[in-house]
Order: sequence, then C-alpha cells, then structure tokens
Amino acid sequence: MESNKIKISIIGATGYVGAELVRGFSAHPYAELIHLTSKSFAGKAFSEIYPVFRGVCDIILEEGYYVQIAKDSDLVITALPHGVSSKTVPVLLENGARVIDHSGDFRYKVLATYERSYKLEHPHPELLKEAVYGLPEFYRNELKSARLVANPGCYPTCSLIALAPFLTKGLVKADSIIIDAISGVSGAGRKADLAYAFCETDEAFKPYGAVGHRHTTEIAEQCGFLSQKSGSEIVKSVTFTPHLAPFKRGMLASIYAKPSELFKDVSSEKINEVYQEFYNNETFVRVLNNKELPDVKSVYGSNYIDVNGLYDPETDMIKLFSAQDNLGKGAALQAIQAANCMFGLPEDTGLKNVVRGV
Amino acid sequence: MESNKIKISIIGATGYVGAELVRGFSAHPYAELIHLTSKSFAGKAFSEIYPVFRGVCDIILEEGYYVQIAKDSDLVITALPHGVSSKTVPVLLENGARVIDHSGDFRYKVLATYERSYKLEHPHPELLKEAVYGLPEFYRNELKSARLVANPGCYPTCSLIALAPFLTKGLVKADSIIIDAISGVSGAGRKADLAYAFCETDEAFKPYGAVGHRHTTEIAEQCGFLSQKSGSEIVKSVTFTPHLAPFKRGMLASIYAKPSELFKDVSSEKINEVYQEFYNNETFVRVLNNKELPDVKSVYGSNYIDVNGLYDPETDMIKLFSAQDNLGKGAALQAIQAANCMFGLPEDTGLKNVVRGV
Amino acid sequence: MESNKIKISIIGATGYVGAELVRGFSAHPYAELIHLTSKSFAGKAFSEIYPVFRGVCDIILEEGYYVQIAKDSDLVITALPHGVSSKTVPVLLENGARVIDHSGDFRYKVLATYERSYKLEHPHPELLKEAVYGLPEFYRNELKSARLVANPGCYPTCSLIALAPFLTKGLVKADSIIIDAISGVSGAGRKADLAYAFCETDEAFKPYGAVGHRHTTEIAEQCGFLSQKSGSEIVKSVTFTPHLAPFKRGMLASIYAKPSELFKDVSSEKINEVYQEFYNNETFVRVLNNKELPDVKSVYGSNYIDVNGLYDPETDMIKLFSAQDNLGKGAALQAIQAANCMFGLPEDTGLKNVVRGV
Amino acid sequence: MESNKIKISIIGATGYVGAELVRGFSAHPYAELIHLTSKSFAGKAFSEIYPVFRGVCDIILEEGYYVQIAKDSDLVITALPHGVSSKTVPVLLENGARVIDHSGDFRYKVLATYERSYKLEHPHPELLKEAVYGLPEFYRNELKSARLVANPGCYPTCSLIALAPFLTKGLVKADSIIIDAISGVSGAGRKADLAYAFCETDEAFKPYGAVGHRHTTEIAEQCGFLSQKSGSEIVKSVTFTPHLAPFKRGMLASIYAKPSELFKDVSSEKINEVYQEFYNNETFVRVLNNKELPDVKSVYGSNYIDVNGLYDPETDMIKLFSAQDNLGKGAALQAIQAANCMFGLPEDTGLKNVVRGV
Repeated sequence: MESNKIKISIIGATGYVGAELVRGFSAHPYAELIHLTSKSFAGKAFSEIYPVFRGVCDIILEEGYYVQIAKDSDLVITALPHGVSSKTVPVLLENGARVIDHSGDFRYKVLATYERSYKLEHPHPELLKEAVYGLPEFYRNELKSARLVANPGCYPTCSLIALAPFLTKGLVKADSIIIDAISGVSGAGRKADLAYAFCETDEAFKPYGAVGHRHTTEIAEQCGFLSQKSGSEIVKSVTFTPHLAPFKRGMLASIYAKPSELFKDVSSEKINEVYQEFYNNETFVRVLNNKELPDVKSVYGSNYIDVNGLYDPETDMIKLFSAQDNLGKGAALQAIQAANCMFGLPEDTGLKNVVRGV
Repeated sequence: MESNKIKISIIGATGYVGAELVRGFSAHPYAELIHLTSKSFAGKAFSEIYPVFRGVCDIILEEGYYVQIAKDSDLVITALPHGVSSKTVPVLLENGARVIDHSGDFRYKVLATYERSYKLEHPHPELLKEAVYGLPEFYRNELKSARLVANPGCYPTCSLIALAPFLTKGLVKADSIIIDAISGVSGAGRKADLAYAFCETDEAFKPYGAVGHRHTTEIAEQCGFLSQKSGSEIVKSVTFTPHLAPFKRGMLASIYAKPSELFKDVSSEKINEVYQEFYNNETFVRVLNNKELPDVKSVYGSNYIDVNGLYDPETDMIKLFSAQDNLGKGAALQAIQAANCMFGLPEDTGLKNVVRGV
Repeated sequence: MESNKIKISIIGATGYVGAELVRGFSAHPYAELIHLTSKSFAGKAFSEIYPVFRGVCDIILEEGYYVQIAKDSDLVITALPHGVSSKTVPVLLENGARVIDHSGDFRYKVLATYERSYKLEHPHPELLKEAVYGLPEFYRNELKSARLVANPGCYPTCSLIALAPFLTKGLVKADSIIIDAISGVSGAGRKADLAYAFCETDEAFKPYGAVGHRHTTEIAEQCGFLSQKSGSEIVKSVTFTPHLAPFKRGMLASIYAKPSELFKDVSSEKINEVYQEFYNNETFVRVLNNKELPDVKSVYGSNYIDVNGLYDPETDMIKLFSAQDNLGKGAALQAIQAANCMFGLPEDTGLKNVVRGV
Repeated sequence: MESNKIKISIIGATGYVGAELVRGFSAHPYAELIHLTSKSFAGKAFSEIYPVFRGVCDIILEEGYYVQIAKDSDLVITALPHGVSSKTVPVLLENGARVIDHSGDFRYKVLATYERSYKLEHPHPELLKEAVYGLPEFYRNELKSARLVANPGCYPTCSLIALAPFLTKGLVKADSIIIDAISGVSGAGRKADLAYAFCETDEAFKPYGAVGHRHTTEIAEQCGFLSQKSGSEIVKSVTFTPHLAPFKRGMLASIYAKPSELFKDVSSEKINEVYQEFYNNETFVRVLNNKELPDVKSVYGSNYIDVNGLYDPETDMIKLFSAQDNLGKGAALQAIQAANCMFGLPEDTGLKNVVRGV
C-alpha cells in the first residue's frame, strides 16, 4: 500500500467511461485504484472484460458495497446512469468520500431544468447547489474544496470551451447560438444494441435526438452563467443537434453565432486573438494557429481540446469549432483533471502525453 | 452495335464520378458506352483501373479526340476540372453532341458570381444562359430539350432538395439559412494525396473550406431562384460549412432556418407535411415518416435522397435534414436521371434499385 | 400479378442474407417476391427494417404460414438457423415448392459428418441424398431439376472455387491443404450482440472458431468429391481457420497446398493457366491476369469471385487466393444464380452488374 | 538540460515509426529528445506535421547534420529506407553515438541473404556481425553493450515471438512452417500513394508480396538460430504471406506447423503450457489463458504482444497466433524496450501503460 497516493474507487468500471478512468488512473503517478465495481461482471478481473489491460490492471471487480467503498477511498468516481447516481452519491458522501459523478444528476443549478430534461424527480435537490460543475477551466477554484463534482457532459464540454470567450465578453448575440455536433460511437456506451452494431454503424452518419437532447439544457444553463459575466444579454437557450459518426472516439462541435454590437471589428483574425488571449494559460485548450481548424484525430485519447473560429463576412456569421475525445476531455480524462484540482496536484498530472501520432 | 440505344461517351472516366457513371450506364437498358477517355490511363482497359469491372466494362480507355467523340455520341458526359470543362464543352457542342458537364463551369447564371467563386475568367459566358441546371426535380421541362446540362454540385443538390419546399413557399426567413454538411472521402476525388490517405482520414473528422467554399454561391444562387417563386424575400446568401467524414460515400446536410411569418403554424408535423406535399410525385426524393431522420447509410449507392425536418419550439428554429450518396444523387446517378429526361425516357430508367441492404 | 415471373418467397427475410436476397430479386427481371417472413418484425414493412429499400421493396412482413407460402410460391428460400431448416424445409417441399436452403442442414451427403459437425440429430436424413449442393460451377446440371438445393456456406464457396481445378486434376497433395480465411462482420448476422458492436469490432482482427469450425467438414466433404475425379488420393480433411475482419462485407481465402507429383512443371504461370483453362467458360469466376491477386474490394456486392495463385519455389508451396462477397457469391447472390439454373434462365440473369466502383 | 537523461535523436522523425518514437520518448522518464530530422519538413515544428503533438513535442525539425547529431546524442535512432541506413549508420557510429536502426540493413548475419533479399550491395558488411538483432526477449544480454542494434521487422517480431518456444525445443517440424499474417495500413508508411488512399484501402483486404517478401528471409534466418538451440533439424526457410487490412495499426500472425516427434503429447493445453513456461518472466509477451486467441485490438498502441495456440487433431496441425501493434512491439516501442536494455534501465521503463481501453 502506497499511503501517499490518492485512494480512488470507480463505481461502474466496465463501461467505456469506466475503462478510460481505469486507463488514466493506472498511468497516474499519485493515484491508486482501490475498488472497481460492476453489477454484470463482479468476480471477474477487470482485464477479462478489457483484455488490453492484462498485466496492467487485473483488479477483481466487485458487486459494490458502497459504505465500505466510501470509507476505503479518498475519491469515488461514479459512472452510473442518471437517476441511479442521484441515489448512490449521497450514500458515498455521507460515508466520507469525495465524489465525481459522471451522470447528469448533479450538473444543474436549476432543479426544474433538471427534472424537465431528465423526466425524473430529484431525491436530493439540496446537493445541486453544493455540486461543482467539473470544468476546471471555469471552476478550478471551486473544485479545490469540492465534496461533490458533477463531471460535465461531453457535448457541453465541447460546446462551452468553444463559446466561453465570446460569451463572457458579450461578443455574440445571446439568442443566435446554433451548435451542430458529432460524436464517435463510444458515446453510446458499451452494450448489446443492434443500433450500434458494426454493420449498422459503419459507413453511416445521422442526426439523433435532434430536438430536446438532454445536453441542450445543460449547455444553455452554463452559457447563461458565462454570459452573465459580460453584462450583456444572457443566453437562455441554444439550438443543438448531435450526430453519430462512424468512429470509436472523438467529438467535434461546429458552432454558429451572430456577432453582437460589442464585436465591432469582428474578423477571423480577431476571433483567433480572442481565443489566444482567453486560453493563454490553459494547458489543455489548444488554440490553433491562423485559420487552421480542429480535427478529431488530433485529440484522440487525450485530454486536449482544440479550438479555432472564422468569420464569414458574406453572412455576418461567426463559426467556432472545437474537437475533443468524447471519452477524454469529454468524460474520463476531464474527471482526472478535476481530481487533480481537488487534491492539490498540478492539473496536468498524469495527463501530459498523447496516446498516438498515427 | 445496338442502334436504338443512346450513344454515350465519358470524358474523364477514371475519376470516382467517371467510374460511377460507367457503373450506372453499364446497367442502363437504353444506353451504350462508346468512348471512355483518360489522360493518365489511355491504352489500358477501364477494368484494369477498376478491377471490380472485370467482365462488366473492359472498354479500352482513349486519350480522347473530342471532335470524333462528339460525332460518335448522342451524349457526352464530361467529368473534368473546372476551367478545363469551359474550354472542352464548346468543342463537343459544336460537333453535335449534347453534353452533361460535372464541373462548376456552367452552373451559374450570373457570370460575376462564377468568376468570383472560381477565380477564373469564363471563355464562353454566352453558354451560361443556355445551360440547364441539371436538377430534374426543379428543371425537368428544361432538360428535355437541353443541349448543355450543368450537373449540380453534390452539396448544392443535398441542400436545395431539403430547402426547396420552404423557399418556394416563403416559409423560412431569407437571411437565416445555415447549412452544416458532411461528405464521404470520395468527394475529394481519386488522387495520390497524403491528406486523403487512409491513416490520415480514418477516425478523423474536420471542417474544411469553412469560409468561401465554392458551393456556397451555387447554393445561394439557386436558393435565390427558388425563393423568387414565393413572392417573399429573396435569398441572397447562405452560411455553409462542409466537413470530411471517414467513409467512402455519402453526404448529409443539417440545415437551420428561422420560420417566416407565413409559417404561422410551424411544427415538426407541419414540416413533414410540407415535404410530403411538395415531393409527392417524386421517385427519388423520399420524405421520411413521422420524426424519422435521414441516415447516409440508407441512400448508399443509389439515386435516392432522403429528407425530413423538425421544429424546435425552444429556439423557434426549423431543422431540415437530407442524406444522399455524394456520387449518386450528388453526382453521377443524378446525371443519368438528367440524361433520361433529355432523351425522353422515364426518369427512373436504370436507377430503380438499391445497391445494398447491409 | 405478372404471371410469367417466378414466384419467390423468403423465410427469414430480415437477416443480412435475407436482405441481400430481397435486393437481388428486386432487380431480377423474371422474379417476383410473394411472401417475406420475419418472426420479429411481422406486420411491419420490409423497408421499415431496411430503410434503404423505401420505395423499392415495401412488402409487409408476415409471421409465415408455411403451407400457404409453399402453395403460393414456385421457389421458397429459407434463411433460417440450422436445426430449424431441417424441420421447416420438408413442410415446404411437401406442399409443392422448390426450396433453396441457406443453413447447413442439407449440405452434407454423409449424415454422421453433419451430426458430428452440428451436434444435432437430423430429422430428415433421407433428404440429404436428394439435396443438391448449390454451387452452380460444379453442379449446374443437377440444379436444373433439383427440388431441394443446399446453398453452400460462405467459406466453403470461397475455398472450393479456389481449390477445384487442382483437386480435380490431382495437382496438390491431398493431406496438405491449409485454408486461412477472413470474413466481414455481416457474416455474423444481424443481431444485438456486444461482440459485434462497432466499438468492439472496428480496428479489431482476430481468429475465431480456430479448431472445429463447422465449415471445415463441409469443405472437406466437397474437396473429397472433387479430388475423387482425379483418380489420385482423396482429400479427407483440411486445416481451416476463419478470422473476423473490420468491414461489413467481403471474404478472402489464402490457401496453402503442396504440389503433387503430377504437378511436375509447377510455377506461378502454370497455376494461372490451370485456373484460366478450368474456369474459361464461367461468368462469375474471374481468373486474374499474371500475378495479380484478389482483393475483397473488387467483388463487393457482386456474385463474382476472383481467383489466382502463386508458387513459392523456396518452400515448394502453392498459394491460392480467392475473394468474394460473403453475402454475394458467398450466400444470397449465389442462391439467385442457382435459382436461375433451376428455372432454366441464363445463369447471369439479374446478376450481371457490379454495385460500386468506389 | 537535464543531464541525467539519455540524449536521443531521431533521424527520419516524421514517418509513422518516427512519430511513434517521438510519442514513446516524450512519455519516457529518462529520455530527452535532442534532434529530430526530416528532409521534407526541416524548419517546421514536429507538431505542425503531427498536430496531435501541439504542446507535447514542438521541437523544430532539422535537415540533419549527422556528425553533430552523433556528438550531441547518447543514442541515435534511424528510421530511414534500407540502402540509406547502411550508409548513414557508420557515420553515426564513428562519431560516438550508439544506434538503433529501423531498416533491414543490419538485421542479417549472412551477407548473401541480405543482398539477395534487398537486391543491394552492402557498403559495410563488417557491421552485420557486430549488429545485435533488437528482440530483447532473445538478445537482452547482447543489447546491454551493443553499439549498433538492428530493430527487427514487424512481421519477424510477430512471427518469432509466436514460434520461439517451439523452435528452441524442437517441437515443430523444421520444414513445415507457414505464416499467414496481416498488417494495418500504417505499415506502408506515410506517403501520398493512391494505393493507400482511404477510398482504395477502406473495406479492402488483400494479400501482397505473396512470394519473396523481404521479411521472409529475415524470419527464416532467425528461425534458424532459434531452432539450432534445439539440437533438432534447423529451419532453413518458411512460407510467409502478408496481407493488408483496413485499420491503421495492428498485426496478427496465424502460423501453421506440424508437431515433431519430440512433441508426443501435443494438445491445445500443452501448447499453452509451453508458452506459459517459456514466457513466464516476460512483461511484454502475454500468454492468453485457456483457448482464448489474440486480437489486434487488445495490443493497440502498446508494446505488448499476445500469443496463444491450438492443436487440431483432425489434421495433426499446430496453430499459433500472435497479435501486436505493428508500430508498437513491431517497431518503435520495441526500439524503446531495446534502448532501455542498452542503457541499463528496467525494460518496461516508459512502456508500462496501455493507450486505450476502447
């Protein structure tokens, strides 16, 4: 037992987010995995489910006794369905663990928005106020002492990082935001479902959840908070359309917005400058040079998110683009970044490298 | 020689559009391929370049003597780069052939827009007026007697079919149109280019030509013509962003537009009704039922284009979606549909079937 | 009702083989689809399950009343699991239909081999003798009057076409045959199974069923029949290993065998000659030129199978290669070729074209 | 300058092997990259060529002055074409650097075999004797003091790891070895070549270099050395056929061999035992349990190689399977493992983790 390491347990370790958490923490110099739980595979080694981990993580999966897990761990990460997290997380908190939750259950400040979006009653609405939205670029101070962190949705992270500089400065019209986004198939999770079978998904491309996708309100709420800082009009809603793309991992957001009157000298160069200035000190937000645009292949397997934007004078339109790995910055690796904040480590601890060149 | 067949020659037969033309006409009951030309592969059999055609089309590729080709053919289809077509097509017309051209050289009515978009001077601007824009759904009467047909661009076809019912009825605001579209890799053509190498393209997804892509003005001009019919405001420009997706064939457009005052009872159901009514008699435009959305996999290898739309009351936004095969309805098979119009055949001759279920 | 067409029904129409049958027969000039059955989707249109068929085949799927189906049809094609076919097919035959069966239930002449390979008792062993093995290249005379045709397995077709010329002439040693083969994912069928999920199958490649795969004995039995003709030693068993490759459709066999003493002048050129001579009159077996080798991409969606071979003097080894579409020549399209034989049509009726160039 | 780190330079850093070396050494705790060279991209940042490395490795690429590079570096790794390496490596050695070379130029002990296989005269045949074949599992003692290491070919590594236990114990017949192998597309290198374009490679699968591929003699020579230890018959040649598979990274070998008389109790269980015993202490060779077989997806991006085998009693045949990443254990990461040996580090330094679960 290396007692100076953060003791981490993962509840729901065999989904794709769980596996990415295991991968990330296995390579983390100050983390130690204690308990990994799985309802379906309890009793088997994690590496039996993910053979790529043979010799790397052979921890035996447990059914999961939450009280004990909380007591044994400094940090418990829950990768559970929404509606289940809202019941499980309080037990973990009560028993002394800090928690990062991957569901939508603690991401909203406005209860009604959550309940409308998820069509669920929240059993612990008091925790919504306490929970910190786990986007370190915006909430790193709050994360330091957070007991409960709501890891952001993948689409929200991708959208908010792209929009933030323009919202906080009031440079785009609050009611003009359109987000057209795509995700790799791993976003649908690990399950036997014909819809995600190879023969149904390869060489396919389609919109889904095109009206009312849950992430819409999550994006809108956070856009509201960001735009509040500008003193201009506050964002209340956004147009959002997700699409399914035929690759395992990766996410791209193509965002359209009208420049506000404050953005008088709007141009592609100026958009790039706004980004450069805003994300100057951020390790994981990479502002591309000139008019180079993000590509999902360049963030594969990493916690990086690449952004850039252009201005189309023909239609007076700002186009913003961001690319991330939906399991990386979009989920598990961002949770590790948040954990680093929570435990006083440099934010890039264990996250510095890329996982492939080709 | 089967003299009752339409004699067809293809100039530039070994590109992907050329190959799809060969495929389509090889299966066409009233067409006969006469000359296939290729600068790079003259002297070889077409099936040496595309081994899948062994025993199906073993015609020997020729360097191409255009006068003779025109004289030997009822119809010449040119799949040449823009700037080359504008010089080649007049020779073919003068020598008595009817022509379908795949380049951008004859797609515009307004010379200045062409010259600005393609950064070329047009050597035969007088032909712009004569040329018929080869979208049979809108111009089938003009096609009957057309001597020169400008086959539409892939993105314009996909966008215009989705937008037409709403533009001709004035149901969307003229200055609100945003088209976010994706194409399979075959859209980039057949060439040795690292940018389209397997290891650079697979598991990648990115925007390209995000401001000023040539198809933008082509779409805008045709939107203008369509909106003219409505008596409402005329579309002058559109926001358009293409993306490259990791599959060979397929194209999807996700289109955003604000309902106009004329569209008082806008709803998802109503959008579907508008489509059903407008495309009621069209074989190749398939309006999906209910809220089902298009998927590129369902139009693979065919001349079909699937459309549907939704209304998002939260942001008062219309979302329209269309999916086609970029080489099918987006290029070669649409040219065959146009050829059927030109030669008095039922429009679906040789185009009725799908090429795969899986 | 077009009474001069062959009335065809498909039992199990919504699997991938079923869908390929529907595709093929929809484009067949002398076939008419009467009944399509599906246990899971009865009551829905076929095109609801496969939206690509909207407007092409909208037949309503039926639960399936076999007596009536048999009476209504000239030909019933069964795409059922083994063990189910053996009970269903006799009912169809008794009620007057001719049958092509896609399962393994009627492919063997030796009952014991079937029962050992499929671990089932055969309820109608008397039909094994009557059933014609549906490889038209070898059994076209028998097919003409066949009442029951056992459509060959995909791996057996690919292997036997490659081996036949050498076996019938005794040019390879009977105990030296090794078949290393790969299949696209559609070979696993249409089902919700995590093993064939996109995220589990893409970028993966593995052997499976590496000892005792059922097709091994089917290949061996037919190799026995072919080698019998040579007057040399008879093949009794073969080494066979299938692999799963990350694409939807396609199959390649790489076959190793030692030349026999009869093959004195063995060389790559001679191997090609043997092929050219043997398959000289075959439409669907394409012997490649010189040392060109088969590629699955060149047979995609077609009934073609490409073959060629090489001799390695360093190890005195013959290498034979064959490529087909596992759903095409490997299943559904071969069944259509067999049906053409059964009903006195030219064998290539409805099968002449290719389905894509790119 | 961190003077306690190994100073490493890479000649030919922008090919796929070079990029994987950069990735590996960027994450290595005791390595420091000094010079990266590229003829084509000198003057640009490495991360301009591989944007995924932005912020991770922004070293400026140099044309490459070899004398200086050698003087500045403890270790130079050359990723150059064969025929170029044989001229470059001596310059590096003379100037004091230790070298790991990725070409075929120093892999053979028998000059004639090299010259026959590569159709080149070797300018420095004296170095063949000195060069250590960089497979740490077999030559780790020699690597410790090696001045020149010939990094093995990808197919040889995959084949030799699978065969070694059986060759060194004389358990397979020396003249019976057949290797059927597949590689991902990155094996063809980074270049603008139509043969490896996305539209030509995706959904394709084919054999290539099916007789006389260079790796054949490399495998055979090393098999000879391994079999020598057994006291039984020595391997002189092997049958080898590579295939191209449609994914970026990964390699699988399916190997067939007849058991020798020494392998009296041959069975699948016994084969597994032989593996378990032979590779008991190896970190990177993972012997799978029971009858589980290797899958390329389970070694993606890592230095692991998975092995297992089966016995087919029907044909008295041993089947061995091994899977590795062609750029990982098959090239760059194995070079890092060798470098760890050369510089007295634990072999798994910087190589312990896996790069993805999904």
